[in-house]
Amino acid sequence: MIVCVFAQIMNVAVWPLHNKLAPVDRCVVSTYQAASGAGAAAMAELEQQARDFAAEKPFDTSIFGRQYLWNLFSHNSPIDMATGMNEEELKMVNETRKIFAEPDFRTSVTCVRVPVLRAHCEAINLTFHNAVPDIEEAARKILAAAPGVTVVDDREANSFPEPLKASNQDSILVGRIRQDPSVEAGRGLDMFIAGDQIRKGAATNAVQIMELFLRH
Amino acid sequence: MIVCVFAQIMNVAVWPLHNKLAPVDRCVVSTYQAASGAGAAAMAELEQQARDFAAEKPFDTSIFGRQYLWNLFSHNSPIDMATGMNEEELKMVNETRKIFAEPDFRTSVTCVRVPVLRAHCEAINLTFHNAVPDIEEAARKILAAAPGVTVVDDREANSFPEPLKASNQDSILVGRIRQDPSVEAGRGLDMFIAGDQIRKGAATNAVQIMELFLRH
Repeated sequence: MIVCVFAQIMNVAVWPLHNKLAPVDRCVVSTYQAASGAGAAAMAELEQQARDFAAEKPFDTSIFGRQYLWNLFSHNSPIDMATGMNEEELKMVNETRKIFAEPDFRTSVTCVRVPVLRAHCEAINLTFHNAVPDIEEAARKILAAAPGVTVVDDREANSFPEPLKASNQDSILVGRIRQDPSVEAGRGLDMFIAGDQIRKGAATNAVQIMELFLRH
Repeated sequence: MIVCVFAQIMNVAVWPLHNKLAPVDRCVVSTYQAASGAGAAAMAELEQQARDFAAEKPFDTSIFGRQYLWNLFSHNSPIDMATGMNEEELKMVNETRKIFAEPDFRTSVTCVRVPVLRAHCEAINLTFHNAVPDIEEAARKILAAAPGVTVVDDREANSFPEPLKASNQDSILVGRIRQDPSVEAGRGLDMFIAGDQIRKGAATNAVQIMELFLRH
């Protein structure tokens, strides 16, 4: 099974909840994607723009056709004219359906490129089929034990997943774990994750574990 | 009425849909907030980190206590230990309730600070109380006529709201307007907005128009 790296990062965190907390009914995701997803030349262009800013020189914008430093923009993949979704968003919807072996799994995604060199982040809102008592604590326990996941969720220190913390890590960092106040108690969860899509060793392993679940 | 600037930027776009398209049932928002929201010193620290990167010097991180360049992080406001929401998120939930004069209006928000100098962005997912035929076109028409809003939504050119396009503009830019594929047809809408919270003249006017609606 070939999976989109980005759906993979998400599902390392969502799969254990879907499997052990309660079935996920719907998923609303916004991404914060790094230059690295577009390759080494995109990373180099972003770094060069910082140097040119310092030197007060005009920016080379050949890769994305726009200033990337101090800016962000909708993912640069082609857009499906009928749905308005870009290819990255379609991949996330479709690959999640494949990974979960649920052809109607409901996801809405907005993919955004941010001026970060490497490691992607995602704000994830999950709605579950049924209410879960003490959903926040239950989710935190499951995530703490999940393969390929490290919980980074210190409210007092305001310490949560960040791209720089996830860079060069095999784990997907998960934090901001909290009950969604916009649905009935126990039915919704918000979280924020970060993962280095270059070093996806652990994520790959975790997805392989999902596949084992699906096969047995 | 004193409103939070951030809820204000959102509601310049959401209010006309709530008022003229269909009543909004629930709103899931992820933010991409600029340094400017934290003041001129925060903007200067971010700019200085780009200069220090170019000069290969260590970064001064006194304002946010972490590297900001090539990074992003959960909003730096204090966190409510009971709900896990930070003050910025609580403000968005509560101010939206006030603006809409609906004390139970349902919003879930994740507030994130990104390495952008000025102008905030938000990925907004709306669910409506009832299905709307041709929701995408109906929404686009209402937004094109809404006070304080400029629609920037060119799929072929991949041209959508960006912080640099919104900077020094009075209008809130709205784009990526598309039907949400994760709910039944006509019940959901995704969009992406950008607004310069320093120049909030038009946004203020639009909110004043909302207040007029509410009073009459």
